[in-house]
Amino acid sequence: MRRLKCLVAYDGTDYSGFQVQPEQTTIQGEIEAAIRRITGETVQIVGSGRTDAGVHAYGQVIHFDTASTIPVEKWRFVLDNQLPPAIVIRSVEAASSDFHARFDVKMKEYRYCIDNGLVPDLFRHRYADHHRHPLDEARMQDAASRLIGEHDFTSFCSAKTFVENKVRTIFDVQVKRDGQFVWIMCRGNGFLYNMVRIIAGTLCEVGEGKRQPEEITAMLAARDREQAGKTAPAKGLTMWEVFYE
Amino acid sequence: MRRLKCLVAYDGTDYSGFQVQPEQTTIQGEIEAAIRRITGETVQIVGSGRTDAGVHAYGQVIHFDTASTIPVEKWRFVLDNQLPPAIVIRSVEAASSDFHARFDVKMKEYRYCIDNGLVPDLFRHRYADHHRHPLDEARMQDAASRLIGEHDFTSFCSAKTFVENKVRTIFDVQVKRDGQFVWIMCRGNGFLYNMVRIIAGTLCEVGEGKRQPEEITAMLAARDREQAGKTAPAKGLTMWEVFYE
Repeated sequence: MRRLKCLVAYDGTDYSGFQVQPEQTTIQGEIEAAIRRITGETVQIVGSGRTDAGVHAYGQVIHFDTASTIPVEKWRFVLDNQLPPAIVIRSVEAASSDFHARFDVKMKEYRYCIDNGLVPDLFRHRYADHHRHPLDEARMQDAASRLIGEHDFTSFCSAKTFVENKVRTIFDVQVKRDGQFVWIMCRGNGFLYNMVRIIAGTLCEVGEGKRQPEEITAMLAARDREQAGKTAPAKGLTMWEVFYE
Repeated sequence: MRRLKCLVAYDGTDYSGFQVQPEQTTIQGEIEAAIRRITGETVQIVGSGRTDAGVHAYGQVIHFDTASTIPVEKWRFVLDNQLPPAIVIRSVEAASSDFHARFDVKMKEYRYCIDNGLVPDLFRHRYADHHRHPLDEARMQDAASRLIGEHDFTSFCSAKTFVENKVRTIFDVQVKRDGQFVWIMCRGNGFLYNMVRIIAGTLCEVGEGKRQPEEITAMLAARDREQAGKTAPAKGLTMWEVFYE
């Protein structure tokens, strides 16, 4: 047996998220079915983390074990070729048998894309949330910087979550304008359920002038989901990169 | 009554083409339903031409007549707001009562996009056809230039067409590489059924080395669909711009 590590990009539009669920079409389900067609093996792939329905990935990382003798350098093409165009295998490499795509994560980067044009860009409509009111990205950056550090992110987490410990560390949040798009780039050691989408929704309210950047500190301290802004739509969110040792 | 001219972009992925068809979701059907919700009028919009199922538009032009008193400058937002994100109203302007979106067309530009990367670009998978074998765009341009002029394009037209006169004029065909993408930009006074997709499929065969650029002349002369290349997939095609007087 040997362990393979794959870098996977996917368009989440038509999927019920990453994780296998009964009666649903999921990214994990599609990849496991592709491996079954290739090697005949029933494997369970392990991702760096789940993504919700409608959320995309540019740099999701997965691992799985296989007894197949297909050379590593052929795997990228062979696997990609068995998948629909909405799932792209960017690379496949041999990993040590103790590599774990979820447990070994040191940092993750998510990006949230807002189309801030008066006329939205058609070719980005599936990957960006259209927000026609002008956003002040300097105000958004001011607010975003107040999220950096180790905090209890209860206010920025769906009330439906079952996780007990809501302390996470955000290493960096950058808000950048690129033409009519505003990107929120968020790096942390882990993210709670809906956390980046709630951060994005809150930063949009700051960018529109409905909230002050200074309010972030009180929102964090309140540990109350009601204090933060709305949850931004899934389609603007992309799991961008996963960092290991 | 007054006539409005609209510039419309759409993602054809989930539509059965532009033109209204029973039991199908079409671009025309969506726009007419949106106008009905806004003004209460049952209008029939006129497009510069149809697009097939799965084909996109960046600059489709339509016209329609309305008795509504909504100011012209409000129409773009009002109409766009009633449409799904896959249909974008780029502009709305008043047109003279004798303007006709189809009859007055002088030239149209279609663009065909090929993703020629070994690893396809996920975010373009709905708008480009992935072609992993390296394409020689200089050879493709050599072939493309032989299509320019007035010709009988029977060889580059679906055999299923009912149009009698298959003479059209191509003013220009440009083949340009932009990173891992190869764009075919085709301007003409009109295009037959599947014409740009057959041109794209044929140019790919030239770009791969399976055909010679010089063969184009004989293909045209043969007036036989069997002589040209395959029909490239719908998803790579976009109606880019429509030109009037």
